Formats: sequence, structure tokens, C-alpha cells
Amino acid sequence: MSEPTRSERFLRACRGEPVDRPPVWLMRQAGRYLPEYRAARAGVSFLEACRDVDRAVEISLQPLRLVGTEAVILFSDIFIPVLGMGVDLDFSPGPVIARPIRTLVDVEKLDVADPRGTVPYVFEILRRLRSELAAEQVPLLGFAGAPFTLAAYLVEGKGSKDFGALKRMMYREPALLHALLDRLTEMTVAYLNAQIEAGAQAVQLFDTWAGLLSAADYREWILPVHQTIARRLHRDAAPLILYVNGGAHVLDAMIEAGAEVLSLDWRVDFAEASRRIGKRAAVQGNLDPCALAAEPARIAAWVRELREAGRAARGHVLNLGHGCLPETPVEGVRAFTEAARSLQ
Amino acid sequence: MSEPTRSERFLRACRGEPVDRPPVWLMRQAGRYLPEYRAARAGVSFLEACRDVDRAVEISLQPLRLVGTEAVILFSDIFIPVLGMGVDLDFSPGPVIARPIRTLVDVEKLDVADPRGTVPYVFEILRRLRSELAAEQVPLLGFAGAPFTLAAYLVEGKGSKDFGALKRMMYREPALLHALLDRLTEMTVAYLNAQIEAGAQAVQLFDTWAGLLSAADYREWILPVHQTIARRLHRDAAPLILYVNGGAHVLDAMIEAGAEVLSLDWRVDFAEASRRIGKRAAVQGNLDPCALAAEPARIAAWVRELREAGRAARGHVLNLGHGCLPETPVEGVRAFTEAARSLQ
Repeated sequence: MSEPTRSERFLRACRGEPVDRPPVWLMRQAGRYLPEYRAARAGVSFLEACRDVDRAVEISLQPLRLVGTEAVILFSDIFIPVLGMGVDLDFSPGPVIARPIRTLVDVEKLDVADPRGTVPYVFEILRRLRSELAAEQVPLLGFAGAPFTLAAYLVEGKGSKDFGALKRMMYREPALLHALLDRLTEMTVAYLNAQIEAGAQAVQLFDTWAGLLSAADYREWILPVHQTIARRLHRDAAPLILYVNGGAHVLDAMIEAGAEVLSLDWRVDFAEASRRIGKRAAVQGNLDPCALAAEPARIAAWVRELREAGRAARGHVLNLGHGCLPETPVEGVRAFTEAARSLQ
Repeated sequence: MSEPTRSERFLRACRGEPVDRPPVWLMRQAGRYLPEYRAARAGVSFLEACRDVDRAVEISLQPLRLVGTEAVILFSDIFIPVLGMGVDLDFSPGPVIARPIRTLVDVEKLDVADPRGTVPYVFEILRRLRSELAAEQVPLLGFAGAPFTLAAYLVEGKGSKDFGALKRMMYREPALLHALLDRLTEMTVAYLNAQIEAGAQAVQLFDTWAGLLSAADYREWILPVHQTIARRLHRDAAPLILYVNGGAHVLDAMIEAGAEVLSLDWRVDFAEASRRIGKRAAVQGNLDPCALAAEPARIAAWVRELREAGRAARGHVLNLGHGCLPETPVEGVRAFTEAARSLQ
């Protein structure tokens, strides 16, 4: 097999077609651990950086040159499309919602307008990135937060350890939470399809907080939402990668979502999970981001282990099990991508 | 079978002997959700309340009378014995360590003195509780934080989402973290054995943060510590209950610890886990504390489901999958214990 382009390798791995080796990228690869990112963000709020097309394009491309990742992901935030729904939110540094959503009136105020009209800069960034990456044939990823994770913040008003207000709504006012999730699902489908139309070649759905639910609650509240999104996305044009943090107990339900790729958090035993998933999906993951603090030789050994473990699944994309952290050493990230690129 | 005392039912369930029905208690059953607790804490810092024998006895007993739990657990905190090691810490409201532990010199300063000398009030509270409970034959539980969870705070200096400093130590200075865990393990063994000597009839080891590790790291860092503690405790006098939060991915390693009872967090599918554990241990759990916001009839139905699911294991103690929260409704707690007491 002649050397594939990075786009070919990535998309084949997602779709479970034969590849020479897994492609590599890292969640939150454009982030504070990079001095160049911090420079690009100097004096600019996070929201401003997300809205500033030139800056967001520059930040998105940084990891490609600086640490050798083999895919570029849109620099943005899962809350950007929520701004387009008329929600008043700020980052300090996590999302803070001025008026948390607690009633049906609040839900009905959420505007499911076309995101191409409400947050046009997202699609402009994607179009610019796609054109920048065309010559090199590097794959471009879009992403969205999953409805439950967005709802968690919208109901709670901010990040939380337990998301007690959200769960009280789940147990006391299920119809209200369903209405909120329905609306966020509509938005998410439109948002991801518009990203695909603007050039995203694959899209990742981040359900960071779905893993807080019991296996039974996950089947009731999360799986149907993921299935709806998977069914309505233009997946012929862009495969879907599904990430659930803390999802070891819901792996079977993740498989049933219908995504091409299941992105596993670092706690999941990658070999066992890949075997269980088998030919039903490709896997992505899953080194603990904190493990990038180790010696390069150990990082390389973990990459080789992950590669072997991932062979049991339909395909494999090398990645972390969670996003890069501000304190992640740049040399650790480089060791990770170098080890991946030198796999046979 | 004639009606057993509450102590008999509890201890038999822990040891996998026949019982009429599972006993019931709740993690953090003496807590802020109770108005009477808030009254007993008024004007008194958390640390002062832990050290004040009369007050701690009163608080420990509150749930027995107010919400009908069938076991009493010492009111204290996992950091109390760490105070006895010479660590300067405060609660605001979570533990804050004035000088986080980062070097071998820091570790060697930790004093593994006899906790009966350094924190005598803990054992006085237990003796008083045991004597108060003797007539009614209500079981008395002691507890300790597991070494890894204590180390997480000691290294980090405070609570954290990722415990990055701890994990950096794990990946970069493993010998240092091993030294710290060894010292905390010594203390924990002495502390729990002294609690048993003072009247605790069962002891629970809380490893709140061990679930943050990958399955492989858990086997390397957590399991040997749990095994050492299990081996060195006076378990003929008091069975050991092992709680790991977010432990769905490490259930097999939890079984190998050797504890009589495995306390499962709410995310774990209780039926599946009970089957997997089978005759190797009893199970404790595992309703989501947030589910106590639901209608009493739904809570009762969940209790019946848990009871049926728990039959597959060697024994079953009804409990939540995590501690009561400040916003937990008192009526939900009552519905939980009432449903448990009316099981056939």
C-alpha cells in the first residue's frame, strides 16, 4: 500500500477500512499547554478568540506545526452555538450562565435558529481551515457538545461536581428536561451538519457529563439523543466520533449509538473495550493526559500498547482519553505523536 | 428465623450469612441535609465539631432517630488522622493543606504515631456511641480515607478535578509517591484497628479518587494498598467495606482486595456487578443520591430492584452509591429507609 495522505488515513481508520497505522491527534491539542497558544490568546478573552476568524484559524493550526498531530480540529467551544440560541453566558474560566434554565418558559425561549446565521464565524473558520489544509491533505474535524452536557451547564448555571440541579430536574420534572434536550438536539444536528457543509471531514460529539448517570439512566436519557443525532447527521460526508467521559459502565450503550468511532476515556481498559466493540465500531484513545508527564520512552511504549490493543476493533485513531491540560508538557505531546508516526 | 437485632442483620449481611432482608444505612447520613445537623453545627467549625465528643456523638446518632437508618457511623472526616500526623490543614469547606507534600523530606516529616495518642477523641466518640447503642443492638461503623485519596489532597494541596500534581508525581517520581502511600497505609491500619478496638463493629475504607486511575494504574497503585490494609485489619472483629467512587472499570481489582463488602457507586449496574462478584464478596449500594429527589413510590421501587439485584452476591447492605448531598430531601431519605425496612 502506497503512503496514504493524512486525510485518507484518518477517514479510513474512522470507517474501519485498512490503514498502514492509526492516525494521531489529541483532544484539546490547541490549548494552554502551548506557549504559542498563550501568545495568541494574550489580551483576548476566550470568547473573543473563538469569534475572531484569523485568530481561531491560527490557533487551530498550531498543533499541526508545533507538535505534529495528524488532524486539525476547529478551535471553538461547545457553548458557542448556545450563544446563538440567545443564552447569556460568559467564561470565567468555565461557562457561567446568567439565568439558569429551570422552567418550560426558559426552554421555549431557546431559539433554534440556523447556526449559519447566528454564529457564522464558526463556518468561516472551517472554510478557511479546509482551504489552508487542502494542499497537505490534513483532515479537518468539527465538533459539538452533546445535548445532555450542554443541558448540565444550562440547568446548573455553571460547572459542578454532582450536577444536583440537573439531576433533580431529571427525577422530578422529566418532561421539562426532555423538552430541553429535544431543543438542544435540534440545534446540535443543525450545527454539526452546517460544520460538515463548511468543510469538516469528521465531527466529534463530546458528552463530558453523560458518564455521571447510572447505566439505566444513561439508556433512558443519553442513548436516544445520541441515536437521533447519529441518524440525522450527514455521515456519508463525515463520520461521527462519540466521546463520553467516565463511560466505562455504558460502553454497550455507546456502541448502540451508531457512531463510526467511539472515543474512550483513559480509565477504560483499551484492550478489553476494543475486543468488546470488535467490528461494531472503530475506537479512539485513550492515554491518560497526565501520563504525558512521563519519560518519552514510556510514552512510546504506551503508544505501542494502545496500537496493539486497538487492532481488535474495526479501526483505531490514536488520541488521549481526555483533553490536554494546561500543565501538559509540550515534549510529552511531541513524544506521543512521534511514537504514533513511527508505528509500523 | 426470629427477627434478628440490627447488629446481627448488619454483620451477617456483611459476612454473607443468611438474613431476612438487607440492612440499610446511607453514606453521609449525618449531614447538612438534616436541619438538626445544621443546628448542631451552628457556630462551630467542622473541625471543632469532629473534636467535640458530645457534639460528634449527638450528630452521629441523629439519622438513627430522624430518618430510620439501621447503622450508625462515626461522625468525623477522613482527614482527622492526618492532623495526627502533623499536617497543617483546614476545611474551607474542602480540605486545604497549608504546605502540600512534594518531596521525600515532606513525606518523612509525616508522623506515624499511635492515633490513640494523637486523635484520642475519635476513639472516645466510638466508645460513647457503642455504649449508647448497646441496648438497642444497633451496629456501629468506623471509617477511614484510603491512602491514595488522602495522598491526592496532600500532594495537590486541595480538591481538584484532575489531580494533575498527584498524577505527575505518579508518572515522574513513583518512588516518592510509593513512600507517601506506605506511610499513609501504616497510619490507616493503626487508625482502623484502634477504631475496632474502641467498638467499631465494621469499618469502611473510602477511596474516593482511586477511580480516576486507569485500570492498569489502579492495579499498580491501589490494589496492593487495599490488600495490605485488608490483611492487617482485625477483620475477625469487624468486616471491611471497600468503597471506590467511579470504580466501574476496576471491579475485578476491587474483588481481589479481600474486603468482605464492596460498596459500589451509583453508576455501576448493580445487577450485573452483583452477578460478577457472586460469592466472592457482599455488595453495598447503590442508588444515586440525587434520585432521593424523586417521589417516594419511585424510591421504593428502586429499593426493591436493588434488593433483587443484590441477591446474586454473597450478601447485600442497602445504601446509596455516594454520600447524601446538602440538598437531599429528608423525605427522600426516609422513603429510602422505610422501603428497605418493609422488604420481605
